[in-house]
Amino acid sequence: MAKNTTTVLDLRQERSNPPFSINDMTEFYDGGSEATKKRKLISSLILNNPAFKWLERHYWTRDEAYSSNVQCLAEVAKILRKHKLNVDDFMHYYWLVSTIGEIVSFEMHLTTWKSALQDQGTPEQRKKWLPLVENFEIVATYCQTELGHGTFIRGFETTATYDPKTREFILNTPTLTATKWWIGEVAKTATHALVMAQLWTQNKCYGPHLFILQVRSLEDHTPLPGITLGEMGDKFGYNSIDDGFMQLSNVRIPRDQMLMRHSKVTLDGSFIPPKNPRLTYVAITLYRCQLLMLCSNYLARASTIAVRYSAIRRQTETKPGYEPKVLDYVTQQNKLFPHIAGAYALACTGHYMIDFGKRATERIKLEDLSVLAEFHGISSGLKAFCTEMSVSGIEECRRACGGHGYSSACGIGHIYNNWLASCTYEGENTVMYLQSAKYLLRCVKNPKSAPLGVSAVLHNPPCKHWDIKNMQDLEKTNTVLEAYRARAYKKVAIADKYLRELQSGGDTSYDAWNKSGIKLVDCAKAFTHYFVIKTFFNMIEKSRLGQSCHLQLHRLSILLALHGIDQNTGDFMLDNFIDFEQIKLIRVKILELFSEIRPVAVCLVDAFDIPDQTLLSVLGRYDGDVYNKLFEWAKEAPLNKTQVRYLLVVVIDCVFVYLA
Amino acid sequence: MAKNTTTVLDLRQERSNPPFSINDMTEFYDGGSEATKKRKLISSLILNNPAFKWLERHYWTRDEAYSSNVQCLAEVAKILRKHKLNVDDFMHYYWLVSTIGEIVSFEMHLTTWKSALQDQGTPEQRKKWLPLVENFEIVATYCQTELGHGTFIRGFETTATYDPKTREFILNTPTLTATKWWIGEVAKTATHALVMAQLWTQNKCYGPHLFILQVRSLEDHTPLPGITLGEMGDKFGYNSIDDGFMQLSNVRIPRDQMLMRHSKVTLDGSFIPPKNPRLTYVAITLYRCQLLMLCSNYLARASTIAVRYSAIRRQTETKPGYEPKVLDYVTQQNKLFPHIAGAYALACTGHYMIDFGKRATERIKLEDLSVLAEFHGISSGLKAFCTEMSVSGIEECRRACGGHGYSSACGIGHIYNNWLASCTYEGENTVMYLQSAKYLLRCVKNPKSAPLGVSAVLHNPPCKHWDIKNMQDLEKTNTVLEAYRARAYKKVAIADKYLRELQSGGDTSYDAWNKSGIKLVDCAKAFTHYFVIKTFFNMIEKSRLGQSCHLQLHRLSILLALHGIDQNTGDFMLDNFIDFEQIKLIRVKILELFSEIRPVAVCLVDAFDIPDQTLLSVLGRYDGDVYNKLFEWAKEAPLNKTQVRYLLVVVIDCVFVYLA
Repeated sequence: MAKNTTTVLDLRQERSNPPFSINDMTEFYDGGSEATKKRKLISSLILNNPAFKWLERHYWTRDEAYSSNVQCLAEVAKILRKHKLNVDDFMHYYWLVSTIGEIVSFEMHLTTWKSALQDQGTPEQRKKWLPLVENFEIVATYCQTELGHGTFIRGFETTATYDPKTREFILNTPTLTATKWWIGEVAKTATHALVMAQLWTQNKCYGPHLFILQVRSLEDHTPLPGITLGEMGDKFGYNSIDDGFMQLSNVRIPRDQMLMRHSKVTLDGSFIPPKNPRLTYVAITLYRCQLLMLCSNYLARASTIAVRYSAIRRQTETKPGYEPKVLDYVTQQNKLFPHIAGAYALACTGHYMIDFGKRATERIKLEDLSVLAEFHGISSGLKAFCTEMSVSGIEECRRACGGHGYSSACGIGHIYNNWLASCTYEGENTVMYLQSAKYLLRCVKNPKSAPLGVSAVLHNPPCKHWDIKNMQDLEKTNTVLEAYRARAYKKVAIADKYLRELQSGGDTSYDAWNKSGIKLVDCAKAFTHYFVIKTFFNMIEKSRLGQSCHLQLHRLSILLALHGIDQNTGDFMLDNFIDFEQIKLIRVKILELFSEIRPVAVCLVDAFDIPDQTLLSVLGRYDGDVYNKLFEWAKEAPLNKTQVRYLLVVVIDCVFVYLA
Repeated sequence: MAKNTTTVLDLRQERSNPPFSINDMTEFYDGGSEATKKRKLISSLILNNPAFKWLERHYWTRDEAYSSNVQCLAEVAKILRKHKLNVDDFMHYYWLVSTIGEIVSFEMHLTTWKSALQDQGTPEQRKKWLPLVENFEIVATYCQTELGHGTFIRGFETTATYDPKTREFILNTPTLTATKWWIGEVAKTATHALVMAQLWTQNKCYGPHLFILQVRSLEDHTPLPGITLGEMGDKFGYNSIDDGFMQLSNVRIPRDQMLMRHSKVTLDGSFIPPKNPRLTYVAITLYRCQLLMLCSNYLARASTIAVRYSAIRRQTETKPGYEPKVLDYVTQQNKLFPHIAGAYALACTGHYMIDFGKRATERIKLEDLSVLAEFHGISSGLKAFCTEMSVSGIEECRRACGGHGYSSACGIGHIYNNWLASCTYEGENTVMYLQSAKYLLRCVKNPKSAPLGVSAVLHNPPCKHWDIKNMQDLEKTNTVLEAYRARAYKKVAIADKYLRELQSGGDTSYDAWNKSGIKLVDCAKAFTHYFVIKTFFNMIEKSRLGQSCHLQLHRLSILLALHGIDQNTGDFMLDNFIDFEQIKLIRVKILELFSEIRPVAVCLVDAFDIPDQTLLSVLGRYDGDVYNKLFEWAKEAPLNKTQVRYLLVVVIDCVFVYLA
């Protein structure tokens, strides 16, 4: 059997003479040289550790997947101790360098739990509980969602009732639908949980608050009395995680296990409200900014796989004896190049928002809450827009791999299976858009200067007609961006006007809001799209990259922006802002950009710097040796352990199956 | 723990007073009362047979899934014999009533193999081989795709070289990339294969032809000499099927195992070409029409699940103490109602095309090939458009289930995992669109009357402006359809003009075709979209339904058409065909339709008549008892067999994991 080695040459050819420094590009993608250094350090600690044997996962049962995850948790604990790493830093890069679906079992422990405690715990609570978590003396999780209640937190049914006689809270899940559900690691792993429950004291309900609850014995790991724990069954992805349920029946905890930094319950049961109820949003808002980095990371992985494989896969003879690489087809470039650009854009948005979040947190600590509403409003829209952009891009990359894209050897399906959850978890996306729209409409009414730039969009009417006359004009980021601003401005105005008309026409505020739903989602999408494009342009502009890298990124950013217009022409044509001639120009420009990006496409995805060990893709291998390795991969399949498995035998009028 | 029974009442309320006959609607969906009767018969034979224990599949290993499938194959053989059923009929309904992902192991055997033999086999070959297949004395499969070659058939590397001395063909897969790959059931199950190979005789290659090859012993099921068989590893879905690979090394078969109805090789090795090489397309074209029914069926399942669950799930207090059903939210209606309509539209398209295919086959048998090019051109576009419409609708339904949509208990993920394959198998969709575009452009050049109505679209210029002045006008199917026709007309003209300009500008025909790729795909999409809407309108019109059913279907068809315009406004605004006021009218009309469809939404999905046993969804249960059954489902999860699985123990500076 002749071996196929031309694929290796194919990729070598693509990399033969990159017109820019791939290393510089990697540092830009990572958010600076320091970030690249840290990422590589964490990467080496993880990938050289035999516990992280993700390559074997393809044929794991649920139990094997879960077991591997527990081993990884223990290894992470060891690594953190041995190398005395900062936990937040570690987790940030651990997410980026590890494999999706196998990473989450300590997300609750090391991030959600920790940040909730830091945010909402008193100094005493932080002092007591944070070291226990950081030293892995307990395993912690976070219990919010209920069987019958998700994004609408006020609807939760779990209760925590204060008993002043014993100075305890009594926790209950009084109905079936109150059962805590979708709780990461609660089924088998966690010993402690932060439980969100309706606070009752002095016969009055004060809404959802957080309580620390030990759920399992530290001696033998059995659930404590009154606590029922279980696993919730298979999911579309993340099957190495023991998401579970929890039911509580009159479980008592001491008063000091309610997080009391903001709201307080005194010894006698009096309730002291928080200064600002919005403060509880800070943790989730920061977490949503972290999600943006993952949106980029997983799209980068999918486009790495699809672009490399497309530089190998050949199809359809166009000259006698010559089948072009599929990457040479314009239809393929149209599928893939916007997602290369998208991965860079999402990284820029992520870096910008994480940085903004850090600054916002500092201001919030000083009790300056002026930025909180904007930060929350915009990050809600970003959570929805960027997860959808990432997930749909990942699937388009998978389809661009043709038939082999459906094989697990491709690796994109695994990313998709897991990352798809991001569209419905941490706030369902339609609800996220509506929250964002609510903020935007509030800004229309009350103009004020906001650091993320909302007012600039909403309070200066756009010009009547787009100022694009020729191909050169399409290079100007400000002019291109103005199209997005005009669209956002108009979509917000349309939603606002429609809502007000319904209300003045006599609709209740609920009915008016409901009937405006489609327009509200639309306006949040348009604003967020503007925000992503603007951030991408700005981050390129303010980077100190050399000209050759800058040129590539400029092309990618213009491509992403023009492609976005081309995909939504109807919106941009509103009030004839853009005309047919301009749309034609855009389409010519896009083809020009494709031909400029084509020679560097493989180098652009190489710059994402995702090692084969975590890319987990036969099609996307760095060396391009796809067909030999596909064959080797197939031979490893468990069904190949025996040659003959069944024998179908026909005996006169009946068919028998024999186990061979 | 209080049990939750309100959900059951919620669904009962939705069904309390249907304003149309659900049974009549079911018969319309099935394609007539006769079809409903046949479907119910096959359904009862399958669902009452304990071998089809699909409900248990959630935790199957690959081997268990495969084993179940082999048992099902044997049961199908028995059912066919016992009830003396027509195989084609049986398979048509079997596909529709069974569970996706677990159905395919006899697809090759009973459909692809059979139809290829009927189409391309000589009378002697049909007489010898068809009974062996129908009686299950052999298990047959079809080997086309190769490791390095998919949709581009001429690129195949497998060879069949005629040896006149022994009057045999010698089959070889001479390179690694020639390895037959993605071959359903070849790994473990099949005993015989139809192999597509390049025919060589008298030192000349005559392109791909089909050859019958026995691959395994009928005695002990071991692979025959020179034949290497294996499984190809895990896939995104269809993991109960043993897709596999095959390598051939000098395997000899008698001359009469080449299918010789059209092309022939004489005893001395002379090649006699077929009268019309296009005849080999007939089988695949007919198969693509069958796929349309599945597009409808799987979208119907997903929308059944999402609509029922949305009539149970409640969210966000809108009045004190009242959380509406999520189905009452306009944003939710906007996600789901177009897919209810879509499932009906796809069924109509499927019925129409299958019927057309039958008539076309009759004409082809009489050597009248006049309809073949149109049939092939249009069904290529339909294959791409309808699989994409179905798959994206399925995913939107899943997301509309919120967080629980990600659990396997939802059931939509399973449909998606499997059906996603349809976008890349049986012809990759972009290639399908390009084939369809090629046909459309040929029609522009050579107008001729074609029964599927291509020329009517392409040869009468549309009017300048859409004739819609008020809401009532939007009820007129002809006027609404004209928007789709105008768009298709223009998109074809744009692609045609662009291509000709490039060619006359000096581009080679390959370069011109490649650069026009995006526009070509666009024009095929626009034409196919028109075709689906037209067929939906026509099938409703010509049905003899009572007024109450007709009214519901009319609303659904108008909704689907207007929603399609609203999603693609830029296209319809080309040359100002539709103006902003009309778009506003459309949006008002869509909201009106939502409020009309809302009260009957559950009844409309009930009419798809998918029993719980094959819907396999806790969220989509007919009785609506979702939360109790979700809890029961979770308790069955294998990880719940033990309460304590691992114990993490911290000993001074190290973390240990103990197996409990």
